[in-house]
Amino acid sequence: MRMYDIIEAKRDGRELTDEEIDFFVKGYVEGSIPDYQAAAFCMAIYYRGMSERETARLTLDMAHSGDMVDLSSIPGVKVDKHSTGGVGDKTTLIVAPIVASLGVRVAKMSGRGLGHTGGTLDKLESIPGFQTAIDESRFFDIVSTVGCAVAGQTGNLVPADKKLYALRDVTATVDSLPLIASSIMSKKIAAGSDKILLDVKCGSGAFMKTPKDAVALAQVMVRIGENVGRTTAALITNMDRPLGHCIGNALEVQEAVRTLQGEGPDDLTDVCVELAAGMLELAGVGDVSACRSAAREQIANGKGLDKFAEMVAAQGGDARYVRDPKLFGTDSCVREVRATSSGWVRRMDTERVGIASAVLGAGRERKEDSIDPLAGIVLERKTGDEFIEGDLLATLYSAEESRLDDAEKILRDAVELGDERPDPEPLIYARVTRDGVERLS
Amino acid sequence: MRMYDIIEAKRDGRELTDEEIDFFVKGYVEGSIPDYQAAAFCMAIYYRGMSERETARLTLDMAHSGDMVDLSSIPGVKVDKHSTGGVGDKTTLIVAPIVASLGVRVAKMSGRGLGHTGGTLDKLESIPGFQTAIDESRFFDIVSTVGCAVAGQTGNLVPADKKLYALRDVTATVDSLPLIASSIMSKKIAAGSDKILLDVKCGSGAFMKTPKDAVALAQVMVRIGENVGRTTAALITNMDRPLGHCIGNALEVQEAVRTLQGEGPDDLTDVCVELAAGMLELAGVGDVSACRSAAREQIANGKGLDKFAEMVAAQGGDARYVRDPKLFGTDSCVREVRATSSGWVRRMDTERVGIASAVLGAGRERKEDSIDPLAGIVLERKTGDEFIEGDLLATLYSAEESRLDDAEKILRDAVELGDERPDPEPLIYARVTRDGVERLS
Repeated sequence: MRMYDIIEAKRDGRELTDEEIDFFVKGYVEGSIPDYQAAAFCMAIYYRGMSERETARLTLDMAHSGDMVDLSSIPGVKVDKHSTGGVGDKTTLIVAPIVASLGVRVAKMSGRGLGHTGGTLDKLESIPGFQTAIDESRFFDIVSTVGCAVAGQTGNLVPADKKLYALRDVTATVDSLPLIASSIMSKKIAAGSDKILLDVKCGSGAFMKTPKDAVALAQVMVRIGENVGRTTAALITNMDRPLGHCIGNALEVQEAVRTLQGEGPDDLTDVCVELAAGMLELAGVGDVSACRSAAREQIANGKGLDKFAEMVAAQGGDARYVRDPKLFGTDSCVREVRATSSGWVRRMDTERVGIASAVLGAGRERKEDSIDPLAGIVLERKTGDEFIEGDLLATLYSAEESRLDDAEKILRDAVELGDERPDPEPLIYARVTRDGVERLS
Repeated sequence: MRMYDIIEAKRDGRELTDEEIDFFVKGYVEGSIPDYQAAAFCMAIYYRGMSERETARLTLDMAHSGDMVDLSSIPGVKVDKHSTGGVGDKTTLIVAPIVASLGVRVAKMSGRGLGHTGGTLDKLESIPGFQTAIDESRFFDIVSTVGCAVAGQTGNLVPADKKLYALRDVTATVDSLPLIASSIMSKKIAAGSDKILLDVKCGSGAFMKTPKDAVALAQVMVRIGENVGRTTAALITNMDRPLGHCIGNALEVQEAVRTLQGEGPDDLTDVCVELAAGMLELAGVGDVSACRSAAREQIANGKGLDKFAEMVAAQGGDARYVRDPKLFGTDSCVREVRATSSGWVRRMDTERVGIASAVLGAGRERKEDSIDPLAGIVLERKTGDEFIEGDLLATLYSAEESRLDDAEKILRDAVELGDERPDPEPLIYARVTRDGVERLS
């Protein structure tokens, strides 16, 4: 078998055999297939796509290219959640404890923020003492005893994806549905959970710009899950504006705590309840409607918050911060961004809002950059909100005065104000399962 | 400027600026743009193509990536000829002397055979003493005094094409019209001639399988020539069967000599006259019809052959071989391939015929392989010829008895025999000039 023939077959639109896909993944990870052949192959896939069978095979091969986490020693059903990335997305901090508080285990491996999106590990590490670099046995212990844990990747997971993603990133071949789907799903499969709930974001702050594209991606991923024996479902949620009001690591932890206390913003609360319900349903707890009620109950009765505090303590964090978020304090440099006219927030370029937060110090441009846990933005008005002249639109926090001007400029440019109330947009567009697409808006 | 953006632009079908193309060629030759980005870029070009302006710019940039041969010290118009490659194509050996004998200079840089196609350098080197590795000043001298010379590439010509072609060859991106055209034309432009006549082969032994595809390639190359100030024309000729009867290096030299003596096969003679006429017309000698007559006259009066002998002598070869080709001798192992029934030759897979010749020792699979100058095939029957049981179809020559069986099998498989006379096929399909396409069949 020769890689040349595999590239040519895909170039000409012929469906690849399982053996050909195996040959590619194995050879590419080993280094016997060079980057330039993989790059030409990815570009051919960009144009020609992959069949459902090809995509599933590629995903499984990538998942098996490194260590596979074996969660079987942890009792019960393990449910994973994955978000395709957004701005202000602190849902894991809320959803994992809610689900765990109902007896369903969540062994969550998370990542760090890059560019305009934040990372769950960075958010949790803003809690003094919180350890995300824990070894597998400790991670398993916490999942078994507490019910949920959030840690960085352990072991050598999915080296095929690491290598292929780095290549796609510099060859303009990221934007391919089967390649995106196999990249995400291979990591979820290697991470070992039995069931997977995907939160596919769409809008100006997400990779998928329209609900239609997001549904298409979700369908490919749900079918991969089916094809490899991991029941998968997806919610399509709105990222045309940041989720909640807070962007920035410690700011988001505080908002997560408020949400678990029943005092969170409606959009964040609703998305978290829907995600928790989706995970609980996958775990066989009940139908979606019953799971929704159960999730809301865990907020109302404080058990979700208790579970979060328990997880924080188990991972070495100072749980007092969960009970008294004021302990976090704020950055010393504060800028109030106020309206100079009256009207409505008509639109937000969410990606640009994320960049404003990164400029303040909350994010990183390159992997090796450090972040400021206290920096960020509190949005007082979001798309659809009315304001009058002088109203506070947002508050910016940074450790460095010099960053405030740049961030304010980016933020103001990112927010479109106007005289007319914009049409309302759905928060949750659809649920995608193996049975099809259910519109929720 | 970033290569990523250039790949993305091409991927999405946007026309590249001159500066972007310059950036790519310069960076790729320097090594600042890695192979994997160039591979993704070539695959995007495969799907999206290039505009006339883009293709001309790429060609010029590649031509200027290394040394440019400056023929201005040689008096008169210099005309080059290029064939896209075929089986039994010994036209350079016939056409260059004819054209030179009429006062138009031909400074021809040729290549070696690879795979199923032969190379002019290999053919000439079957003449004892013939030197193809001559330095530039000696090459210029011979072109000036004799009127024609055929040598291997001197200097560092078109390194961009060398590097890019090697990459395309392993990434399934050879088969792209603008990339093929720019590869050929960049070498012709760097080789320095004022006018360029292209012989674009089509059929089972050629890269272009149909006249339509061959015309399309010719048109792109003629337009490149126009755009860069080198008048270019093309003939589209038949490679659905080998040209002439002989395939193999010394065998082809002998057939070239017979053709210059007026005793060559009709197809070879006609193609050579048309090529010579095309070159003479480009040089301003007269209209095509007058040039055709002049070329035939140089065969009839023996001046073409004299010029060939003169060139062979000037390049160190033993000119007695030109006067008395029997001196070549033949390989000791001979196989007569005879008909086991009666009928017509209906079709030939010319590429497979070329491979049979290579198997006998006349060609090479890899660049570093050596060849046997005396090995090859003499075809007694070609497409459209009738035969009866027992007739000689071909004679095979090799230095090794063991190669005969394999070659005979490949040859028999390559030739389709049948009861019905096939429809005749044109020998020369069309002439392509800046004024358009003129059908010649």
